Amino acid sequence: MSERKTITPAHRYRNNDKLVGIGNRFWNMSEEHGVAGIVGDLNDGVLRTADGHEFVNFTVCSYLDLDTHPKVIDGAVDSLRRFGVLDHCIPRTRVQTPVLLELEDSLGELFGAEVVTAISTAAASTGLLPLIASGHLGNGVRPLMVFDKNAHVSLANAKPTCADETEVVTSRHHDLDFLEDMCRTYERVCYVVDGSDSLGGYAPVRELAELQDKYNMMVFYDDSHSLSAYGRRGIGYVRSHSPALDQRTVTVATLSKGFGAGGTAILLDGYPKETRRIIERFAGPLGYSQKMNAAAVGAAMASAEIHRTEELTELQNRLYANIALFDSLLATEQSGSTYPIRVVPMSDDTVIDGAQRVFAAGFYVSPVFFPIVARGTAGLRAMLRAGQTEEQIRRLCEVLVEAGARPPTALPEPVAP
Amino acid sequence: MSERKTITPAHRYRNNDKLVGIGNRFWNMSEEHGVAGIVGDLNDGVLRTADGHEFVNFTVCSYLDLDTHPKVIDGAVDSLRRFGVLDHCIPRTRVQTPVLLELEDSLGELFGAEVVTAISTAAASTGLLPLIASGHLGNGVRPLMVFDKNAHVSLANAKPTCADETEVVTSRHHDLDFLEDMCRTYERVCYVVDGSDSLGGYAPVRELAELQDKYNMMVFYDDSHSLSAYGRRGIGYVRSHSPALDQRTVTVATLSKGFGAGGTAILLDGYPKETRRIIERFAGPLGYSQKMNAAAVGAAMASAEIHRTEELTELQNRLYANIALFDSLLATEQSGSTYPIRVVPMSDDTVIDGAQRVFAAGFYVSPVFFPIVARGTAGLRAMLRAGQTEEQIRRLCEVLVEAGARPPTALPEPVAP
Repeated sequence: MSERKTITPAHRYRNNDKLVGIGNRFWNMSEEHGVAGIVGDLNDGVLRTADGHEFVNFTVCSYLDLDTHPKVIDGAVDSLRRFGVLDHCIPRTRVQTPVLLELEDSLGELFGAEVVTAISTAAASTGLLPLIASGHLGNGVRPLMVFDKNAHVSLANAKPTCADETEVVTSRHHDLDFLEDMCRTYERVCYVVDGSDSLGGYAPVRELAELQDKYNMMVFYDDSHSLSAYGRRGIGYVRSHSPALDQRTVTVATLSKGFGAGGTAILLDGYPKETRRIIERFAGPLGYSQKMNAAAVGAAMASAEIHRTEELTELQNRLYANIALFDSLLATEQSGSTYPIRVVPMSDDTVIDGAQRVFAAGFYVSPVFFPIVARGTAGLRAMLRAGQTEEQIRRLCEVLVEAGARPPTALPEPVAP
Repeated sequence: MSERKTITPAHRYRNNDKLVGIGNRFWNMSEEHGVAGIVGDLNDGVLRTADGHEFVNFTVCSYLDLDTHPKVIDGAVDSLRRFGVLDHCIPRTRVQTPVLLELEDSLGELFGAEVVTAISTAAASTGLLPLIASGHLGNGVRPLMVFDKNAHVSLANAKPTCADETEVVTSRHHDLDFLEDMCRTYERVCYVVDGSDSLGGYAPVRELAELQDKYNMMVFYDDSHSLSAYGRRGIGYVRSHSPALDQRTVTVATLSKGFGAGGTAILLDGYPKETRRIIERFAGPLGYSQKMNAAAVGAAMASAEIHRTEELTELQNRLYANIALFDSLLATEQSGSTYPIRVVPMSDDTVIDGAQRVFAAGFYVSPVFFPIVARGTAGLRAMLRAGQTEEQIRRLCEVLVEAGARPPTALPEPVAP
């Protein structure tokens, strides 16, 4: 048997040896030190472990705390009672109940876009990117797919599939010069990038729109981290800033995180109804797999209603006040931005100890350290939310300073939405 | 601008030009003739369109009608009330509430397996297959990935990704000789196949187990269409028949369809706890995207309880009786099988008319015809369920015979579970 063939992998776009080899060391260390693999019951915003330790999770992405809003939970329950089924199990292209259509109408009005929903952003991106790669979502020309090197893994994982439909390259982070160069070289280009990064920061939306105008470039944004938290009625960063809201811009944004519900919205502009059909039929999992269930739809409908009221602005303002308070107490690279994520720099030697101290003091922040980031760039990731109290934020920052975090040397710029 | 580069696609594993080109003609024809794109409110098992037409959906995959079972809906509502949040939005590898762990314990006991859940089967397969391809889920050796040519599109879509981690080939349907040949040639082989096909029929599970024993071959099954509908306590076809329930067999099965809830169960045997960690951390969307929400979990917990009672056997028996009744009235290739899907043969000229007549008579069955299947193999796909009445089935079959379907020439073999 020993002469049987073994295989040498191509590893053009991904490499599980690296991913698992490096990642597993990180996760094992985190879990051994009690700063990952934590289980707790959630009550009134406080998690309680089996051994009675209580903590507030400062790494949860529900930036406006809409996920636990009574109206959102009631919306989920009412929807289950009204439709009497979580999912009428047949592709919606054949037969559907009105449940998704009603939500898509509501979100369409809210965001000023044509909306198609999916069960998750990963499902949406997995389904849409190959259709863009083949030119079926776009203008019929196969674009060179340029993936930003920091694009979220749910986007990057689509590279091998896209590469079977067109050419795929990876660019440096927000490398506008490279993009312009590619636009000059290729008949069409599609740039795939986070509208709002999971480690903090926004895409250069306006500069990209210039390239879109000049070269008819397409941009695929994942704006999951800014929906609800940013913009009038929570329309997110991309839709607040891009002057290219037409066929050249496709955005996906999760309805979990800020929106507090579940599922994902695909936001389209300027496409005919036929394009919607193409997506429903051929965008991978959208054509054959599970849809948002009735509970997620009901929650999203209720959250959409909140987005239409003054309450949303109040929640955003509370979030911004919490961000400003945090920035007044601790220095991070993100200081002064409206972005709700902060990475508190720590040394490689102190980051786990820091996370443990924070946890012991009743808070959870996520440590990131070598080998998942380069040596010398370790940190603790904290997410601000509307519902955190001043006392919680002050106490967290105290503990972080005790653990070696740096207070600001000067007052940060005031935060404006 | 006209001298800019256009791209010639590789099309090694997929081809959207074909998929969309062929598929869209099929869907447009279906929709133009009113046998796709149907919207209806669902009440007591009857759908009602905006213009008042009422029909029973005979192409819904909830084989035991558990999706509308009051205990399942109550379970979803109770879970929402208990956990107070659809999803605590953070990767479960960091912090999780007990919601998924409780379900996984329950399903693990029910199916006699180690269970990891995912939001959908597409997410699970998308995540697991590349880990199998790289040897990280398995025995460390990169297997040749042999995809059955009929494997569901949610499996087939993983080919380009797997091809970046190992070699990928497509085999003829259930081609055991080819598989054995590959097993002799390659150090390791993984066969990817539906345990239960969406067009009817089961995988040759016992014959595959022989190859698994002889060559240490791995098999990845999607058994979504037989879970709940088949086997003691609804454990499905693969787990009822495979003597190779160990590290060499990985099965995914949806918790929507027969189970009536939502989400998916990954069924593992013989792996250490570390493997579960690898899956939670690195199986694509499982590591970063949405999880089953609390409503789907509550529904699945309630459905699991029903699976433990005599009620499940009664529902299965009602399903089998309905299948037998259908087979006594109409001839199909699937006649005599416990499998709940029947494709009623029609000619290419009559299939749309047939679907329209059936719809007018108050039923929906899905037409399949050229160009999505070869000329001469058109048909109407019907799914039997426990909750259909004798009158409904008799009436549907009458209409189908009027539309050209063939009654059985001889009595079919009796159906045994």
